[in-house]
Amino acid sequence: MPKKIRLGILGGGGDSLIGILHRVASQINDNYEIVGAVFSPVYQESLDFAKEIDIPTNRIYKDFDALIEEELKLPEEERIQVCSVQTPNFLHYPMAKKLLDNGFHVICEKPMTMNYEEAKALEASHQKSGKVFALTHTYTGYPMVRQMREMIKNGELGKIHKVDARYYQGWINPIIHDKEKRSSVWRLDPTKAGISSCMGDIGVHAFNMVEFTTGLRVKSLLCDFNYLYEDNQMDVDGTVLIRMDDHVKGVIRSSQVATGEENGLAIAIYGEKGAFRWEQERPNFLYKMSDTQPTQIYKPGHAYNSELSLDGTKLPPGHPEGIFDSMANIYLGAARAIRGEHYNDGEFPTMQDGVRGMNFIESTVASHKQGNIWIDLD
Amino acid sequence: MPKKIRLGILGGGGDSLIGILHRVASQINDNYEIVGAVFSPVYQESLDFAKEIDIPTNRIYKDFDALIEEELKLPEEERIQVCSVQTPNFLHYPMAKKLLDNGFHVICEKPMTMNYEEAKALEASHQKSGKVFALTHTYTGYPMVRQMREMIKNGELGKIHKVDARYYQGWINPIIHDKEKRSSVWRLDPTKAGISSCMGDIGVHAFNMVEFTTGLRVKSLLCDFNYLYEDNQMDVDGTVLIRMDDHVKGVIRSSQVATGEENGLAIAIYGEKGAFRWEQERPNFLYKMSDTQPTQIYKPGHAYNSELSLDGTKLPPGHPEGIFDSMANIYLGAARAIRGEHYNDGEFPTMQDGVRGMNFIESTVASHKQGNIWIDLD
Amino acid sequence: MPKKIRLGILGGGGDSLIGILHRVASQINDNYEIVGAVFSPVYQESLDFAKEIDIPTNRIYKDFDALIEEELKLPEEERIQVCSVQTPNFLHYPMAKKLLDNGFHVICEKPMTMNYEEAKALEASHQKSGKVFALTHTYTGYPMVRQMREMIKNGELGKIHKVDARYYQGWINPIIHDKEKRSSVWRLDPTKAGISSCMGDIGVHAFNMVEFTTGLRVKSLLCDFNYLYEDNQMDVDGTVLIRMDDHVKGVIRSSQVATGEENGLAIAIYGEKGAFRWEQERPNFLYKMSDTQPTQIYKPGHAYNSELSLDGTKLPPGHPEGIFDSMANIYLGAARAIRGEHYNDGEFPTMQDGVRGMNFIESTVASHKQGNIWIDLD
Amino acid sequence: MPKKIRLGILGGGGDSLIGILHRVASQINDNYEIVGAVFSPVYQESLDFAKEIDIPTNRIYKDFDALIEEELKLPEEERIQVCSVQTPNFLHYPMAKKLLDNGFHVICEKPMTMNYEEAKALEASHQKSGKVFALTHTYTGYPMVRQMREMIKNGELGKIHKVDARYYQGWINPIIHDKEKRSSVWRLDPTKAGISSCMGDIGVHAFNMVEFTTGLRVKSLLCDFNYLYEDNQMDVDGTVLIRMDDHVKGVIRSSQVATGEENGLAIAIYGEKGAFRWEQERPNFLYKMSDTQPTQIYKPGHAYNSELSLDGTKLPPGHPEGIFDSMANIYLGAARAIRGEHYNDGEFPTMQDGVRGMNFIESTVASHKQGNIWIDLD
Repeated sequence: MPKKIRLGILGGGGDSLIGILHRVASQINDNYEIVGAVFSPVYQESLDFAKEIDIPTNRIYKDFDALIEEELKLPEEERIQVCSVQTPNFLHYPMAKKLLDNGFHVICEKPMTMNYEEAKALEASHQKSGKVFALTHTYTGYPMVRQMREMIKNGELGKIHKVDARYYQGWINPIIHDKEKRSSVWRLDPTKAGISSCMGDIGVHAFNMVEFTTGLRVKSLLCDFNYLYEDNQMDVDGTVLIRMDDHVKGVIRSSQVATGEENGLAIAIYGEKGAFRWEQERPNFLYKMSDTQPTQIYKPGHAYNSELSLDGTKLPPGHPEGIFDSMANIYLGAARAIRGEHYNDGEFPTMQDGVRGMNFIESTVASHKQGNIWIDLD
Repeated sequence: MPKKIRLGILGGGGDSLIGILHRVASQINDNYEIVGAVFSPVYQESLDFAKEIDIPTNRIYKDFDALIEEELKLPEEERIQVCSVQTPNFLHYPMAKKLLDNGFHVICEKPMTMNYEEAKALEASHQKSGKVFALTHTYTGYPMVRQMREMIKNGELGKIHKVDARYYQGWINPIIHDKEKRSSVWRLDPTKAGISSCMGDIGVHAFNMVEFTTGLRVKSLLCDFNYLYEDNQMDVDGTVLIRMDDHVKGVIRSSQVATGEENGLAIAIYGEKGAFRWEQERPNFLYKMSDTQPTQIYKPGHAYNSELSLDGTKLPPGHPEGIFDSMANIYLGAARAIRGEHYNDGEFPTMQDGVRGMNFIESTVASHKQGNIWIDLD
Repeated sequence: MPKKIRLGILGGGGDSLIGILHRVASQINDNYEIVGAVFSPVYQESLDFAKEIDIPTNRIYKDFDALIEEELKLPEEERIQVCSVQTPNFLHYPMAKKLLDNGFHVICEKPMTMNYEEAKALEASHQKSGKVFALTHTYTGYPMVRQMREMIKNGELGKIHKVDARYYQGWINPIIHDKEKRSSVWRLDPTKAGISSCMGDIGVHAFNMVEFTTGLRVKSLLCDFNYLYEDNQMDVDGTVLIRMDDHVKGVIRSSQVATGEENGLAIAIYGEKGAFRWEQERPNFLYKMSDTQPTQIYKPGHAYNSELSLDGTKLPPGHPEGIFDSMANIYLGAARAIRGEHYNDGEFPTMQDGVRGMNFIESTVASHKQGNIWIDLD
Repeated sequence: MPKKIRLGILGGGGDSLIGILHRVASQINDNYEIVGAVFSPVYQESLDFAKEIDIPTNRIYKDFDALIEEELKLPEEERIQVCSVQTPNFLHYPMAKKLLDNGFHVICEKPMTMNYEEAKALEASHQKSGKVFALTHTYTGYPMVRQMREMIKNGELGKIHKVDARYYQGWINPIIHDKEKRSSVWRLDPTKAGISSCMGDIGVHAFNMVEFTTGLRVKSLLCDFNYLYEDNQMDVDGTVLIRMDDHVKGVIRSSQVATGEENGLAIAIYGEKGAFRWEQERPNFLYKMSDTQPTQIYKPGHAYNSELSLDGTKLPPGHPEGIFDSMANIYLGAARAIRGEHYNDGEFPTMQDGVRGMNFIESTVASHKQGNIWIDLD
């Protein structure tokens, strides 16, 4: 009999976007219960946030070390089983390592560590621990990304010979073109953000997508970065030539100054027998191309999809997965009304909408039955 | 200080799609806690389902009447505040009415009732009750649908003069063309499904969308239904001419035999100064057209959006709202691993993915810094 | 051995758009030579226009009657074989009739006549004449429209059960909303434009598309027009319910006030086994849908296309047919330069572009061969 | 008074695609008359082809040298003014050079020459000649490509900082994967095709597009080619990193093994104030993006377009330029009928289509006027 998994949260308090994303995601399949947390380095903020989202405060801890120490005192069947690490990048490694070393499972935001050396050290801890470690390369969770992987594994593209992946954003433009801003923001300060801005933040997603979908490994690369001003030398743009084996090549393009692009992650994979194209901003549409047949559009939830893809689809074809959010918005409006809070007209459909609907349906039947005549609504 | 709202569920057990949708939606904004339910007419099934999704069974009731009776005995601060009605259509009216009459708020699936008469009776109960009643016309929750409504209200299209809405699906095709199936399925049996199949199930969504976005009311209509075989006269397709005032006309098209269509809800609204086009299957793209200017593509989460639209967006621009589901799929895979259950390769990114990522990022920096040379990955 | 067909032109002089369209189209497949014309009711304008487009003036006639009379005096092997009728609508019938009665083939713009009675009379003349009569329902010439027709004929959609066609434009908006303009423009004056504006001008194209592609005939219809102001009652918008047989229904939507729409002709055809969607503004993309298989995108010029479709494609896949125009624009720029006329920078690629191109190609080879190093261009 | 320009053709006979493209393009704006040609190295084939397309044979020459010699004997007002060079690549240089040296204007297919040295030599001849030389980089003729150039020139993107261009095709796949074919086809034989396959044939188009639209010049590049088999070392794929000045970088991607791609030329240009995206297969749609405003879709023929763009548009908005071809297909069908040749049903709309149309229009008016009742068609 399934029981909810006891989840601890590190970071992600207040308005943190990543906090919302993890919290929502952890609830969607009825699998997790948040039982403990350090939402913020400031204890009082952690407590306040726990109250705000209605989580019992007795296991909100002062800091990460206290969380480990106190949880280990609890009997195993009450103890946090897995921690979700949503703290700033430099804390990923020490927290994940200590969690694994103390027998906790870990769900960790990316980048996993600050550098490759830490990554290999964490890998060693992980292997010793025998615990689950999940890295939230979120995009691999899309049903159609999974579908690509499975179809390629089944040989439906034949031998792959070319890969082209891209992650283009434009959000850093207003910062980079402003001398004041570009010299003060932590993202562009190598002492705070690490060795790379663009490649470390988003290029690595494109890289992960290439290896995840093709099942091939990048053997070597040649890279050129761009920065737009001499006074700041963090990469805000870069192109990477990749070789997967002698005759399988590709390119990974990544930019934070691609004006007007939002989350422009996309991949094209070309093989002997076919090809795929997929874009993150229309995640339900997977294009399978061929030199001789009409292009096919695969969509989620169909019987023709792979088991891995279908496992990630909760609703029938044609519901963009975002429909959960649409419904959630209606629940949100209703919650405000129930609490007697202010809400705007239009936040949720009301009784009047229901009455109108029935009036409409009955009128259509009446019009049709009486020989297609005009019927007035009330 | 916000406290979670105590939610009761009626119906929606087992594999019910509508059950999943409501349950997920109720969790997304940290507002609701499920405290009681009648998931199924069979008591044992309700209990089993509660255990499966890890809800305490002490307030799982034998039936709807027991739920009302027992909850009313509880002190008000423990009692269910709002019930979500997800039962078959014919139960919507009696349940919603009794809930309102007994002081509960109601969130109700559509169609609200079996007919217009019931709808008006329910409206009367609602007015007496002073309680919140939210009807889940889900599509009005999309940020860009809300954006249309607000911009129209602000006069950005000028006077509206033409509306064209559509809801096309193809799922009933395999049933309607099979004599055996079309005479046995409850959907096409008027004694079970009510007076209309296509218009009652999906046409009414298009109707609601027309009134929600334009702020105009349909005054009269003329309708023609289609059924494909003499031996079954339920509408599986229909077209409705509408008049909103003497010179504002429109058309609502609805079909369950539109082969290959999935959830093809779409709307076009034409006004003196501009027009909108929107499609449910690409819900993040709203097209604003004009006779003299380039068409504009509005997307969620931007500063140019209305308050109502932004309120329904949880992440920055370019994240399809479906990204919650993508992240949730990763949490699901991790949950299986944590529980020691079987999971497929690819369900969540692992330690190895993190190690590869750091290897990649460091290699790009090295290649760039050393003058764009090839670097081998480990 | 093919010889060019001797073509006469009626109307289409000056800046007439329809004149350009016919003239270009007649040249594209090397089949026609313009030998005679009445380009304008004003003789001098006809002569001037002939000189402007470099056509011999000896067979430019004073009027239509003179053209008939004089051409009949010529030996048959010199005489105009076919006339293209591009005059205002009310002249289509008398001209086409006289042409057929005198043994000329006819290519005629639509609407063919001013009313149904004339149409039937013209049909009678045509049958007696034994001559070719081609009506320029231009859209049936698109390769993918032809492909729809052939695949439907071959049964690939199974029995058709629903058709939905649309022709939406917005160009009449600035006229209809201006009281002065709407009462003066000939298009909205029934005494000049005939019984219908919107349906006669564009709705009939959607109707033709329905019958052309499905091979079915509309048996009956129910129509509702819209006009936006009491002081002008010409239809600027209309919706037509159609019945093709008892259980095959459809809808034809047509509007000249669909703000921001340009030439929004589109069709969707739903059958037992599959469906098609096609839009005129992306004429190379034909979507074939199914309830169980991925949607397929058919494009012109592939071996999988029908003979009729391939016959209408002059270039390999992926060249939008508009590439002829792109090349023609370059020829136009070169013509201006050759004549020593003014031309803008950018009208055609020059020697310098060619030099740059060779510099580029050689540099790429050099960079690759020398181990992916940077090469400076001149 | 404009007079048609006397055009000579070199190559492009028989089924040559490039021949059709040039011939059609030369006719589209009423500017050129073909007066002489060497369509084929075989004299009889040249003569036969001239008859087939109905061109007088008296100036069809034995070979290129004869053409030059004989034309120079003619008085200047009869002599060929411009020659269109459509011969195999290695003939471009000697022919273009001799033409310029003898006082003819030249329209020349790309690649302009076999290498950069020839290109510079030809440039010298051109400068001496004072004649017009137009290179058919066809894609610069598209109205929306011209629109990009003009808007960038006007500063609407601000300073450009990133360019990304692509030309992906898949047609060489069936050849490259077949050992027999890849060792015999001239395209992949460096002794016949020159130093480059992919970059020389299509990469150079993407390069030209980058410089044409941005007005910037590529200063240096780094390139990596791919070939898929050791036994053939011609590039069938390549990626080029480009630098335009120290902080303006870009990438040009080019492939002939991008399975399922047709003519996938595309460009994205990112600047401080805005960005453009354009694709050749949907040439009428130009996307202008911004970090703060809705994306705009520019289309041809609007008053908001530049003079250069509008000059390349012959019809009002919403007509894909391919409509010329659609109309031409109807003229082609009619030509077959007029000649009494075989033609397929569906090649052109007939009298019956016209009669049906009038029946339709009158029926819509009748239905509307009589209160929206059903009207039977004949």
